[in-house]
This record gives sequence, C-alpha cells and structure tokens, in this order.
Amino acid sequence: MSGMWGKHISISIFGESHGTGIGIVLSGLPGGIKIDLEYIKREMKRRAPGQNKISTPRKEGDEFEILSGYFNERTTGSPLCAVIYNTNKISKDYDALKYLMRPGHGDYTGYIKYSGFNDHRGGGHFSGRITAPLVFAGALCKQILEKKEIFIGSHVLSIGHIKENHFDEIKIQGKDLQNLSSKEFPVIEDKVGEEMKKEILKVKEEFDSIGGIIETAIINMDVGIGDPFFDSIESKLSHIVFSIPGVKGIEFGAGFEISKMKGSKANDEFYIENEKIKTYSNNHGGILGGISSGMPIIFRTAFKPTSSIGKGQKTIDINNNENTTLNIQGRHDPCIVPRALPVVDAVAAIAILDMIIEKDGTKWMI
Amino acid sequence: MSGMWGKHISISIFGESHGTGIGIVLSGLPGGIKIDLEYIKREMKRRAPGQNKISTPRKEGDEFEILSGYFNERTTGSPLCAVIYNTNKISKDYDALKYLMRPGHGDYTGYIKYSGFNDHRGGGHFSGRITAPLVFAGALCKQILEKKEIFIGSHVLSIGHIKENHFDEIKIQGKDLQNLSSKEFPVIEDKVGEEMKKEILKVKEEFDSIGGIIETAIINMDVGIGDPFFDSIESKLSHIVFSIPGVKGIEFGAGFEISKMKGSKANDEFYIENEKIKTYSNNHGGILGGISSGMPIIFRTAFKPTSSIGKGQKTIDINNNENTTLNIQGRHDPCIVPRALPVVDAVAAIAILDMIIEKDGTKWMI
Amino acid sequence: MSGMWGKHISISIFGESHGTGIGIVLSGLPGGIKIDLEYIKREMKRRAPGQNKISTPRKEGDEFEILSGYFNERTTGSPLCAVIYNTNKISKDYDALKYLMRPGHGDYTGYIKYSGFNDHRGGGHFSGRITAPLVFAGALCKQILEKKEIFIGSHVLSIGHIKENHFDEIKIQGKDLQNLSSKEFPVIEDKVGEEMKKEILKVKEEFDSIGGIIETAIINMDVGIGDPFFDSIESKLSHIVFSIPGVKGIEFGAGFEISKMKGSKANDEFYIENEKIKTYSNNHGGILGGISSGMPIIFRTAFKPTSSIGKGQKTIDINNNENTTLNIQGRHDPCIVPRALPVVDAVAAIAILDMIIEKDGTKWMI
Amino acid sequence: MSGMWGKHISISIFGESHGTGIGIVLSGLPGGIKIDLEYIKREMKRRAPGQNKISTPRKEGDEFEILSGYFNERTTGSPLCAVIYNTNKISKDYDALKYLMRPGHGDYTGYIKYSGFNDHRGGGHFSGRITAPLVFAGALCKQILEKKEIFIGSHVLSIGHIKENHFDEIKIQGKDLQNLSSKEFPVIEDKVGEEMKKEILKVKEEFDSIGGIIETAIINMDVGIGDPFFDSIESKLSHIVFSIPGVKGIEFGAGFEISKMKGSKANDEFYIENEKIKTYSNNHGGILGGISSGMPIIFRTAFKPTSSIGKGQKTIDINNNENTTLNIQGRHDPCIVPRALPVVDAVAAIAILDMIIEKDGTKWMI
Repeated sequence: MSGMWGKHISISIFGESHGTGIGIVLSGLPGGIKIDLEYIKREMKRRAPGQNKISTPRKEGDEFEILSGYFNERTTGSPLCAVIYNTNKISKDYDALKYLMRPGHGDYTGYIKYSGFNDHRGGGHFSGRITAPLVFAGALCKQILEKKEIFIGSHVLSIGHIKENHFDEIKIQGKDLQNLSSKEFPVIEDKVGEEMKKEILKVKEEFDSIGGIIETAIINMDVGIGDPFFDSIESKLSHIVFSIPGVKGIEFGAGFEISKMKGSKANDEFYIENEKIKTYSNNHGGILGGISSGMPIIFRTAFKPTSSIGKGQKTIDINNNENTTLNIQGRHDPCIVPRALPVVDAVAAIAILDMIIEKDGTKWMI
Repeated sequence: MSGMWGKHISISIFGESHGTGIGIVLSGLPGGIKIDLEYIKREMKRRAPGQNKISTPRKEGDEFEILSGYFNERTTGSPLCAVIYNTNKISKDYDALKYLMRPGHGDYTGYIKYSGFNDHRGGGHFSGRITAPLVFAGALCKQILEKKEIFIGSHVLSIGHIKENHFDEIKIQGKDLQNLSSKEFPVIEDKVGEEMKKEILKVKEEFDSIGGIIETAIINMDVGIGDPFFDSIESKLSHIVFSIPGVKGIEFGAGFEISKMKGSKANDEFYIENEKIKTYSNNHGGILGGISSGMPIIFRTAFKPTSSIGKGQKTIDINNNENTTLNIQGRHDPCIVPRALPVVDAVAAIAILDMIIEKDGTKWMI
Repeated sequence: MSGMWGKHISISIFGESHGTGIGIVLSGLPGGIKIDLEYIKREMKRRAPGQNKISTPRKEGDEFEILSGYFNERTTGSPLCAVIYNTNKISKDYDALKYLMRPGHGDYTGYIKYSGFNDHRGGGHFSGRITAPLVFAGALCKQILEKKEIFIGSHVLSIGHIKENHFDEIKIQGKDLQNLSSKEFPVIEDKVGEEMKKEILKVKEEFDSIGGIIETAIINMDVGIGDPFFDSIESKLSHIVFSIPGVKGIEFGAGFEISKMKGSKANDEFYIENEKIKTYSNNHGGILGGISSGMPIIFRTAFKPTSSIGKGQKTIDINNNENTTLNIQGRHDPCIVPRALPVVDAVAAIAILDMIIEKDGTKWMI
Repeated sequence: MSGMWGKHISISIFGESHGTGIGIVLSGLPGGIKIDLEYIKREMKRRAPGQNKISTPRKEGDEFEILSGYFNERTTGSPLCAVIYNTNKISKDYDALKYLMRPGHGDYTGYIKYSGFNDHRGGGHFSGRITAPLVFAGALCKQILEKKEIFIGSHVLSIGHIKENHFDEIKIQGKDLQNLSSKEFPVIEDKVGEEMKKEILKVKEEFDSIGGIIETAIINMDVGIGDPFFDSIESKLSHIVFSIPGVKGIEFGAGFEISKMKGSKANDEFYIENEKIKTYSNNHGGILGGISSGMPIIFRTAFKPTSSIGKGQKTIDINNNENTTLNIQGRHDPCIVPRALPVVDAVAAIAILDMIIEKDGTKWMI
C-alpha cells in the first residue's frame, strides 16, 4: 500500500499525472491556526515548472483548492484536503510509449506491480507532479514551525561536478535560510550558481540531463526531539525524503565523510556558554542517539539526473517482449534539482512538525 | 515513543545495557516455520564482542532464551519473544560518568529527553548492545527469505581511507554472499581486509577509533515489491538502517555518485534475455519508483568511529553546569564496523520480509 | 487526530457538511479491479436523504467524482480519491445556532476540542453527511468481496419498541442478504416493517425522533480470518462501527443475552457434515478467539434517536455562558436507522476486506 | 498479525499458557514516573486464580519481573518489559485433548489459522492467562491517571439473571470506584453480590458455567479527549475491550436501551452550574461525537459463560475428521466475570491514557 505517512500529522496523497486531480489530506492539525495562503503559493511556485530557462517550458495549473478543514481563514481541526485539478493534459503523447519501458522511470516496476493497469500517462502516480501536494502540506507545516522560530531551508550544493560551499554547520541563521528560499536558484555563492545553471543549459542542448545534491538545514530545534532506534530523527527524515522520486542517497552531519575520520576528530566536544550547551563542531548534524541536540540539523540529499532524456535509449517493448529503442519527445527538465529543492524543504517540515507534536502537543500552534 | 517497527512483521525491542535483560517481540510470523537455532546463534556470534583482537575483549552473555511463540521447534504463529539476560554487569564503572556527557553518545540528548531518569549505565537503551535482539530477529527473517532463494550479505567496503572493490552490481551470487557471512572479517579482497584490520589495531593503540562503510546486497527479489512514495524500498530500508546506532549516511545503487552523472549514463537500459528482463547496468540499485526491479538491491551504510575513545575529551558536567574534561576508561571496540555488519544484514532482512509479505502473504514460509 | 483507518485497505476521510466538498482516499487496492459504478450509486442512494416520507425531504447532491486511482473502468493500484461536492448549501440557518450547543450532538465537545474554530455549519465534520464517502468506499469493497461469494447485509431489527425476527443464525443465505439490500425499508417481515414506518411517522408528527437496532450478517467467510487480542474480528468491526455517528452499542452472536446463559447452552457444539465443520448453534456469531469459524458472522448495532428534534430543549449559550432554550428548525430525519443501515454494511465491508487481505493478499480481486 | 496496540502508549503482548513465559512491552511512557509496585501487585491479585471458592483452585505464579525500562524505582523512558514466568505447568493434561476442539474456545479457529502448529496446551496464546500482562500494564496506567484525579472502576452488574443497580450515572465519585476496587467481589449492593456468588457456586456444582455483565465508569476526564470517527472514544475502548477473551457485547451510556427511546428523552440537556457545563442526564455516557463531555464515561461489557465445563459435549476430532464427544477434566472458573473485571479496568486505563497523551502530552506524569 502507498500514500499514507505520519503519526501526529498524517498525510494521505493521491493522484496521477494525467488523471482528474492530485491532492493531499492532512490530519492532526488543531483547530484555529491562521493559514497564510500566499506563503503556500510562494512555496508551490518554487516547485512549479515553466519558471525559467533551466526548467521545462511546460505550464502546469498548480492552483490548489481547499475542500475541507479550512474555514474563516483558519484550520477547523478536521482533516484538511487540498486538490490540484489537472488541466490542459494532453495524453496522446503517451499512448505510443505505453509499452516502451523508459529507463530510469517506474514504468517497468509499476507495470509489473499493477498488472499493467496503472495509469501510464505521464508516469501516472510515479510522476514528480505528485510532489506538488507535498509542497502544499509542507508549506503549511513550515509556516507553523516558524512560530517556534524553527526554520528549514536548502541550497543547491552541487550540480554534476560543480559544487559550492557547505552551510556553516555552527552559525547558520534563520535569515540565511529565508534568504535562500526567496532566491530563484538557491545557492550560497551566486557565482557558483551561475556555473551550475550554465551546466544545466549545456546538458539540455545535448538532449541529456544532470544530477545534483541538495543540502538542507533545520535550526532552533529544542533539545530532546526524536527517539532512539525506529523513531530516530534520521529514520523519520530519511523515510520521507526517499519518498521523493529521484533520491538515491541521504547523509546527516559529516555523513559519508565521517567514515574516514577518527573518533577524536568525529566526536563533537561539548561546552557551556551563557548557560547554553553547545558543541564546538557539528559532525553529528544536530542529532545524537536519534534525538535533537539543539545544534543545526544538517542533511544532504543526492538526486539522480532526470530520467527522461531526448537521446535515444535501448529498452524493451513489454507487450511484444522484444528489445527495441526509445526516443522520448516532449519537454523535460534537464535537471530536477532546483524544482526538487522546495520538495525536500516540504517533507522535512512535515516530519519535523510530526516529531515536535510528540513532545509539545499542538496548543502552541494557535 | 520508541521501539516498535513494521507492518506485517512487527518488532518491539526493549532493554538497557545494564538492566535485567534485553529482548525483542516479533509478531506476524505464521505458525509452523521450522527454525534453525544454530543459524541464529551463528549470526549472533558475528555481532558478539570478544571474538578477536580488533574487537573489545569484553565478554557478553549473548545467549538468548525464547519465551513464547516457539513450540516443538517451530513457530506457533503467536508473538515470539526472545530475551538475553544481562549477566556479569559491572555498573560501578559508570557512576563516575553519570553527569559527564560523553561526546558522540546519546548521553546528553537522552538526559534531556528523559529528564535525567534514563538508565545511564553503559549507555542504557542507547547502547549498541540493544542491537543483539535485532540480530536475533534478523537471523530468523534471513533464514526464512532463503526459502525464496533471497540472500542478503554485506562486506566491509572501507575502514577509514582504506577501501576495497564494490560488489559486482550485476553478477553477484547467493554463494558470494553466504561466503562473506562465514568470514570472520567479511571482505571481497582478503588482502585489503588485512590492511583494514591493521588500521583498526593502529587506532586502537592510539586510544582512538575509526569509521567505515558497509556495502550490502539483496539478491533474487521478485519484481514488484515495494511502493511509490512513503513505502518505497529505499524509505523502509533507510528507516530501519538509521535505527542502528552510529549510522550517518545511506545510499542506494550509484548513490551520491549518481548526482555527478548525466542521464544518458545514469539510466540503466533494459533488455530481454532468455525471457528475463534485465538492465545492462545497475545504477538504480535494484529499485525503480520505490519498487524492486529484479536486479540486485545494493546499498551502502556509513558508520562513524566508535564514540568511546581513550583519549581525553572536553565536555560538560550537566549536574554542575560546568565545562570539564573526560577520560573514558574501559574496553571499547576501536571500530564498530565489523560488529555492525551483521546488524545491517539483520535489519535489512526484517524490512525485506515485511515488504514481501505485503505481496506474497505468509503461506510460502511453512 | 482523526480520519484515517485500516492496515491493508486504508481509508482517509475528509469534509464538513457545508464546506466545499467531502470525500475519501482509499489506498491498498491492487491495479486492475473492474469497478461497477452503478453498484456504488445504488448503495449511495440507499443512504441519500429525500427518498421517502420517513426521511428528511432535504435533497443532497450525493454525486461523486473520482479524482484518481481509476482509469479505463478499473483501479490503477494507486490511491483512489472520490469527492462529493457540497452544492445548494444554505449556511444561514446555522448562524443563529452557532453558540447554542444542541443536546445529543458533538457541538459542545467539538467546540472545546477545536477551541471554537470548528466549522459549526450543519454539524461540520460531525455531520452524518460525512458517512456518504464511507458508503462509497464500502460499496467498492462489498462488490470485491462478492467475488469470494462473501455477502454482507442488514435488516432493521427494531424501531423503538417494535421488533422483528432475528436472522436465521445458521441458514442465512447470500440471496436473502441481496434481497434485503434491494428493499426500500430492509426488514425480513414486511408487515412489521410497516409498523416500524408508522412509528417513525408518528414521532415525526410529534416533532420527536426514535432509535433502533440494525442486525448485520456476513456469510461465507473462510475459517481463520482475524487474530486473537487486538486484531480480533470483534475489535476491528466494533472500532469502525462505533465511528458511525449515533451508535451506542454493538454485540456479536448471542451478545448481551449470552451473559444470562449457562456454558452448556452458550457453547456451540461442533460436528462434521459432508467434510465441512459446522456448529449446531451460533451463539458465537461466527467468531471464536477473535477468528472466523466459517459460520455466519452476526452482529447488532444500537442507534440512538436523531439528536435534532423540533421540540424545545434546554441548553447553554457557550458564548455568553448562560442557560437558555433551543428550538431546532429545519428538516431532519425522525429516525436515522434506515439511512444508517447501508453505512453499517459499508464499514463492515471495509473492515472485512482489510482482514481478508491479511490472509489472502489481493491477487484474487482482479 | 496480533499482539500490538496503541499510538502514544503502545503495548506488545506475548506468551502462551504453558510456554516459558508471558509478558508485555510498554512503550511511550516518559522517564521519571515513580511506580508503586504494590499497587500493581494488588491489581494483579484481583485477577489471579485461587483467591476464593468461586474461582478455580489452580494456583498460578503471577509474580512479574521487570526486565527493562525501570531503574531506581522510576520509569527510564525506554520500553518497559515485564515477564511472568510459567511455573508448575502440567502439560500432560492437554495432550489427550490436542485434536478435540473444545466448544466455545479458539481451538478450532486457531488450529486452522496456525495450520495446527499453535501451542495447544491450555489454550496457548488464546488463554485467559495472557490477560495477566494486560493487568500489569493497566495497573501502571491506572496509577498514572490518578495523578489527574481520573478514576476507573467496575462492578459486577449481573451474573446470569441476577442483576444489581447501575452506577449513578451523574454522581459517581472516585471514592466509590476505589471502594469497589478493594472489594473481593465488587458490587454496589453486597446483598445482591451474595446471591450472585451463590449462583456461581450452584452452576459449579452442576459442572456448568455462567456469564455476566460488568459495568465500568471513568470519571473526571477533561472535555475534548477523543475524536470524531475512527479515533472516537467508543471506537478505541471497544477495540481494546473486545480483545479480552469472552466478550460478546459492549454498550456506552444508555446503550441498547437508547434504541427504544425518543430523542426528547435520549438527548441529555445541558446546563451551567458554578461555571461548569453539565448535562441533567447521562444517556450519552460521557461521550458526544466521539469526544469526552466531562460527564462520567460509563460502559457495560457482556461476558459469556466460561467455555470449559465439566459436562459432556459433542465435538469433532480434527485429526481423524470425525464426530466425537468431549469431557473436560480439570479445574476451571465456573464464571470468568469476577476475574475479568480487573482486566476491563486495565484495558480501559491503557486506552484512556493513550487518548489523554494525544491532547496533554506526558510531562504531567512525572
């Protein structure tokens, strides 16, 4: 089964790329939270296609309609359902491809799992388009978290081999993260960002695509959120982050690099300053024993290159059981990383809010 | 809340390092599975300390007792509870440390979360010792999976900067994985393994510790296991793998490297051979759209160096709210990677069995 | 949190009586099930108001739209979302009542729980109208169960003090249950049914309302569905049946009467006939140790009288914190039992399908 | 799957009547709760057999050992596991019965479900003995609830046809409930209690058994606990109460009687007195719209007569597939109601604590 997640904040997503509509049901919010719809629209626009030259020129109607759980500008406390109707869907493009399994996509595994009855048009339920409702829910959670001065933000750490600086693992501030959220192409070093965009345009001209890494920070968490073992912050964040199509890796704090370190370097020593307990370094990425330490939570997510490319590819025709070749027409993002970035922010916000409610309940939200 | 996981195979772990006992309850197995207890003991011995020079000389009584769910050498279908009693526990060692927060450990976050009432002795519930019951449950699941010819195995890919070859992502066989499981130090290239062991002994002499990476393969999975979004194989495996103390990163298939690739290289092209659908390469690590493709599932897990080191470290005394220094006495593993390896196998086996039951039910197990 | 239920078949309901729309997301169905939409419409019409003199003359637009999970007349395997838009909603009626807590309704408890921010119009999320999506989902599950020759059906056992015969606990047949489903007022003895309807019309004239009992049968279940303790059939059925507004009691088999029996009478003796194991009597209601015995599952659900009545009632004004009186205008069902009956069938179908998948998986559905 | 329940307070039970041990893992309690072990022992003694003439003379070693989660007389915040070892188990009694399906028991359904591999001795996992760990967990939750002045208590409302008065649905006090808990045979009217005991002894002499009804009250709940639909108080309480072996019915407030009432009588009118909102009557049993109203929560549970009786019964030999007769030897309770009563209290306490944490978190417990 698929499509439901969460304990205190539960989400239930639905929809196929070319069906009637896609959406999400969000349960667990208390009644009375004033929602800033403009905030949500801004976040959704960050994910929407057609914003610039480096994303697909395809326009999607990402306008959401709230069906329930929202009354007089506030949450009612009942499940909140938001729908995005699929308009201007041209399904004919996909009929020729129905039995050609696109490499890198979920076409083949979905065909087998659903006995050939999945909605194949535009990837159906596997489409990146289904992340739009996640951004809706995440934007809602993100604005609630800001009431506790908790900020979540990401930057494009790398596109292919082009890489910029990491976050300052100790000093990162809320305003830095908000600043990133307002950028069209969220990087710390704009000059490196320009090179990244050039690289994306270059692979686009080659009818190819490119991958990249997103680095995310969550700051001002209280100490003591999360649990050892199965409800560790890493467990819950990785679970929801790997739900985003295209993710192949995640690491926290020093991540894979920590495997090369000695303990005397990897261990973050504690000290007290102005009655606040901190660590000198942050290789632990704000999480010790699965539980927040109060230091910034930092994680990195690796995205693969867009699976849809213009170049010819070998594949199979699953109807005739034969080898064949495939040329994908149509307009695709040469790199999903920039549009995936607000999705990472969104799912992180959902997971973090879920974990905070475990400790603090929901009264502070109103 | 902590300690419970799973939908079809549910586990509930309990225990503290120096309490009366640690254990696990395993629900969801059908009645009638013949269990090979020797198989379980072998797997548990791989995790047990005191096996050789590179692990802590401390001996633990890892002998388990099955309290329920097992009758006449078979499962009864009711919850199976196994307990490992803590014997020979010397708690005095830990009293001096009670308020000194050991860097890298869960002491500080646990102290705050549990209001100072957690069992501090030997890390309490945060202790790596709590992974012993996971190995018990995993060894049970692993032997059940072998009835479907599904094999799970791991090798030490790297210790610090010393690294050996990856698995053959296409050709890896069940006998290779079984061979690794029988090795005292599971590597593909024994020569590199010797260097790794030397490195571990070297850091031990320096009263320091070192990290490493484990690479795991799961082979002969049917196509169509797993789900898009929240129940993707990556989501469920990462969730349970990050439950293991000391893990800071996980990646599937080409992992973080895929972020540097172009789509034309990253996409694994399909072909049919002898009526079987395969891919020429396996950058997708056996998972497309969250669902198994039938190719080997391959993932890598990054472990940090052992947090307990003999070298002096700065820290705080949380009772007196003051900065201080800490010298950890006692016998610790200079590297947790070799003993963590069977734990990774174990939790992977639990998660994979859970996902297979979703599709195939439980009748094939008997 | 509210609104989600189920393990294999998961449902997520949403909506308020006078909001934009109400609906349900159904996850866990395999791809490829051909759905009979007319079957669903028939079941929904049974619940719809305005069908006859004994129900409210209010007309609701109960026409559903499927947004996802349905393609080419079959399920796709992805979450299926159906929405019923609220049309012709006249909210003004409710403004005067906003702070007057209607006795028997969830107004007061909802006001406190949601800090006064719940959508008060027409009962909001507490409205019986939210059961319409449950009937949608139940009708889908019910037609799937019929592929296994499992039939679910109910009759009005009593209205007030007027009571008809029980089901034949041993011999009840599928065609009896289908026959009941096609009746406008589902009773076994039509003559008693006429008396019941007269009683309902009588209380209607008195501006009052009346309660009743529904008896439900589920036949042709395999032996071995369900579990001891927390996943017993009784546990799961009662959980979902008590979700229906207005239910105050449930009993299985001989139910409360069994408390007066001796064991020698209550125990249902086994015998074999034509290689089939049966019981001579069915006081156990088809469930032993929480698990299906193969005999008909029979349960009875007690409904309270409609809370909205025309007669004046004492209550409080929660805004002014004072005692007052209330006269509810508007058109209400004098008895909810006839319209609740298809809702009981629906939730039973959802729960039973969920439990059968635990044992038999989903392949048989296609 | 079986054996796990709960969201905030999660329990995982295990054990078979004649296995090595039975027990429970309790997760979700915060660190630092001081536990009164004597309180727990008192509650467990109420359930234990061999206390008097009306219960089985069989002695069970119900002494529990806490394996984890408890340190220095307080909870540690980690999962708490308690085990009761099965001593003095005489299994030979049961070998003759192995293939004779005892009427009223889970023998037959368990045999089919577990393919004949369930532990048949003494009912195995279906045994009422497995409720002992539930009483352990419930006694822990019950003493925590008393910190909020929430009291839970029950009386024997009826044995067979002998019935005493109901609780005063409006005025019931904590001290009344505590008084009942200290009685050997908890009734409001001791004279009727004597008759009940006589009736039990009478059926005992007849080698028969008798059923009964338990009435339970929960007082001093805040307004606003619970949810509409699937997490209604009725849904959660009925779910866990039907987990107790032998339960065939449950009703809240006026229960089945409300089906005979008119709305003008059934509706409980509100009024304000000393700034507290109350209802004049309590037909709603303290729950409106699934949510607590602040009035006493009152429910009744119907128990069937003990299935094990000395009288001869017809049954089948499932090994030889033939009809036969059965004479159960051994010592059995002629009526399970008195010993089931503390179990009802226990599971109610677990469910109520779980629901309160949803609203109030866990900080108040320490």
